[in-house]
Amino acid sequence: MVITLTTDFGFQDPFVGIIKGVIAAINPQAQVIDLTHGVPPQNVMAGALVLQHSVRYFAAGTIHVVVVDPGVGSARKPILIEYADACLIGPDNGVLSLALESKPPDRIIELTNTDFHLQHISKTFHGRDIFAPVAAHLSLGVPPSEFGKPLDTLVNLSMPQIVRGENRLDGEIIYADGFGNLFTNIREHDLTGLPRERVQVALAGMPPGALVTAYAGVSAGEFSCLFNSWGLLEIAINKGNAMERTGAKIGDKVTVTVKED
Amino acid sequence: MVITLTTDFGFQDPFVGIIKGVIAAINPQAQVIDLTHGVPPQNVMAGALVLQHSVRYFAAGTIHVVVVDPGVGSARKPILIEYADACLIGPDNGVLSLALESKPPDRIIELTNTDFHLQHISKTFHGRDIFAPVAAHLSLGVPPSEFGKPLDTLVNLSMPQIVRGENRLDGEIIYADGFGNLFTNIREHDLTGLPRERVQVALAGMPPGALVTAYAGVSAGEFSCLFNSWGLLEIAINKGNAMERTGAKIGDKVTVTVKED
Amino acid sequence: MVITLTTDFGFQDPFVGIIKGVIAAINPQAQVIDLTHGVPPQNVMAGALVLQHSVRYFAAGTIHVVVVDPGVGSARKPILIEYADACLIGPDNGVLSLALESKPPDRIIELTNTDFHLQHISKTFHGRDIFAPVAAHLSLGVPPSEFGKPLDTLVNLSMPQIVRGENRLDGEIIYADGFGNLFTNIREHDLTGLPRERVQVALAGMPPGALVTAYAGVSAGEFSCLFNSWGLLEIAINKGNAMERTGAKIGDKVTVTVKED
Repeated sequence: MVITLTTDFGFQDPFVGIIKGVIAAINPQAQVIDLTHGVPPQNVMAGALVLQHSVRYFAAGTIHVVVVDPGVGSARKPILIEYADACLIGPDNGVLSLALESKPPDRIIELTNTDFHLQHISKTFHGRDIFAPVAAHLSLGVPPSEFGKPLDTLVNLSMPQIVRGENRLDGEIIYADGFGNLFTNIREHDLTGLPRERVQVALAGMPPGALVTAYAGVSAGEFSCLFNSWGLLEIAINKGNAMERTGAKIGDKVTVTVKED
Repeated sequence: MVITLTTDFGFQDPFVGIIKGVIAAINPQAQVIDLTHGVPPQNVMAGALVLQHSVRYFAAGTIHVVVVDPGVGSARKPILIEYADACLIGPDNGVLSLALESKPPDRIIELTNTDFHLQHISKTFHGRDIFAPVAAHLSLGVPPSEFGKPLDTLVNLSMPQIVRGENRLDGEIIYADGFGNLFTNIREHDLTGLPRERVQVALAGMPPGALVTAYAGVSAGEFSCLFNSWGLLEIAINKGNAMERTGAKIGDKVTVTVKED
Repeated sequence: MVITLTTDFGFQDPFVGIIKGVIAAINPQAQVIDLTHGVPPQNVMAGALVLQHSVRYFAAGTIHVVVVDPGVGSARKPILIEYADACLIGPDNGVLSLALESKPPDRIIELTNTDFHLQHISKTFHGRDIFAPVAAHLSLGVPPSEFGKPLDTLVNLSMPQIVRGENRLDGEIIYADGFGNLFTNIREHDLTGLPRERVQVALAGMPPGALVTAYAGVSAGEFSCLFNSWGLLEIAINKGNAMERTGAKIGDKVTVTVKED
């Protein structure tokens, strides 16, 4: 049984290793896969996007644990979501919500049953004390309903929406990867009806760009606009760093227009 | 059988991957868990603190390998320690010593038996050439005594001690995590006898702070002082970075006093 | 069966985790080991050196996947190489070539059989869509010839060559590790015939240095020149960072001469 981990813990400290120790002590057979620990600190939206675009590549039934949890120790609830594709475990702060896409959860459980937590619960590290042991027991076959009481609703993040005009789309930067590639909220099907070969993509700090199909579709050092591995319109520089070059940041506007013939 | 790895190798190079290759070639069934590879370069005390606060979360008998080893290739001894909780493998420079807490080791072995080392021993990478193969053979059931000759003593690190005054404790910063949270050497039981609700924590670069129980117990951007997941008094900023804001570094003084009514 | 991963993906994003999900969904028994994900972005030579110096520490038959692939989505071919020591999978841009040393490949296959790829192939992430599923199927025992059509040749990187003079060698920096240690292209056997105790190593930004055998062979803060764990002449600083101190970069000249008596 696979358990994935997504956190904002970074790589300096033993916190992720400790979580793996807790899991291995409960279920030595669990296979733990790091999705990433490089979510920017306390950035719930980035964690939600990472999970959303990763779940489909794992076998159904995989257990995904997400610890991007600035409200740890406060009133926010620790939860487990069971749905068609996977089981999700983490804080109820929206970080799990985008992965559901439009699929309704089969079950949402608040993790109130302390029998499945570590004996001593800190106020700062529920990843170790609650989420890891719950994931490990779940991977051993404990039914989700055992972990606590059902909830009817969960906190949902809302993705920034694109605005459609005539021959025009207004979107924005929602994620920047480690190469400095800029991911927008514009999906490939959003361009339906626009003539692809005349589409122009505009972002402050770069010349308007046409769509290409690969990074190497432009010369080294040139901007490229393409649909990336998450199905999103991306602005990149062949062998370069678009975020550094443009100075763009999350939330900056990106516009798609159609060039006159 | 679980083998953990703690190093200061960072994440740029294949050195950790090579260690895992050596282990897998000897014992393909060993389960290797990265505790962390982000110990600051050559920082033996940081490595010792990481191990000390992690061992309890792993099953008894786990093998912990620590390679923070600025003296590699010199006279410092490669050793194996067997004690109640675990087996520890690494250089005898103190990095393994804090994990023992007050428990006496059952056995300390100097790793002199070259039958269990790689054939060619470099002068710069005993993690690969000595510690990894010894850990792998140990995980296969080779008795500790086979790896070399017994030692009576080991190099011990001494933790900086707190100083107690009347209604006052003087401690210091001993670790800073990747979020910039500042860990002190003051433990929860050190406050026994002080009125918790009137305690004030002082560190240069921040206003004196009261104790709270969770990061979210103060507003975003405000300092919080709390007992953290290692049981230590920690100075943090809710959704912020206390190390950057205060400019504090390891060794800086932290004082606990009691506010007048 | 062990599959190793070497990429320039860094640690911020879930791309490596997604690759592991693809592998685990096809072969849950595969053991995946990260060699490194810290290859400098798009640096094919660094990726090739990493693989070259790691393969020998893994059991024969290990599958090594390398994704340093600036030409992804262009005409460069995805390939599989089978040779005496291992199977190598990645782009045909030279990144796999140094690992072969002088051993001839048994087989080079262009990965044209889409039956073993993911159903939807992006133009930006062949690591996920082609290399990972091919590696997973290979680890299940699918014969290499099934994955596509044979190739006769592959793209070879050429290592910078040293120049030999009388009592003199001219080499260069070819790799810098995360400690700032500077690796040259001068191997131990290149010094055959030179009197080791009178050898002097010169690099701009440091005083000429004699050979030592361990980092701790000089005082803290002093330069040391030694043959490192890859068998290469390395310039380091005991408990320090030689790259920062000298300002050296890849390609900078290093000269070995013999001091007069």
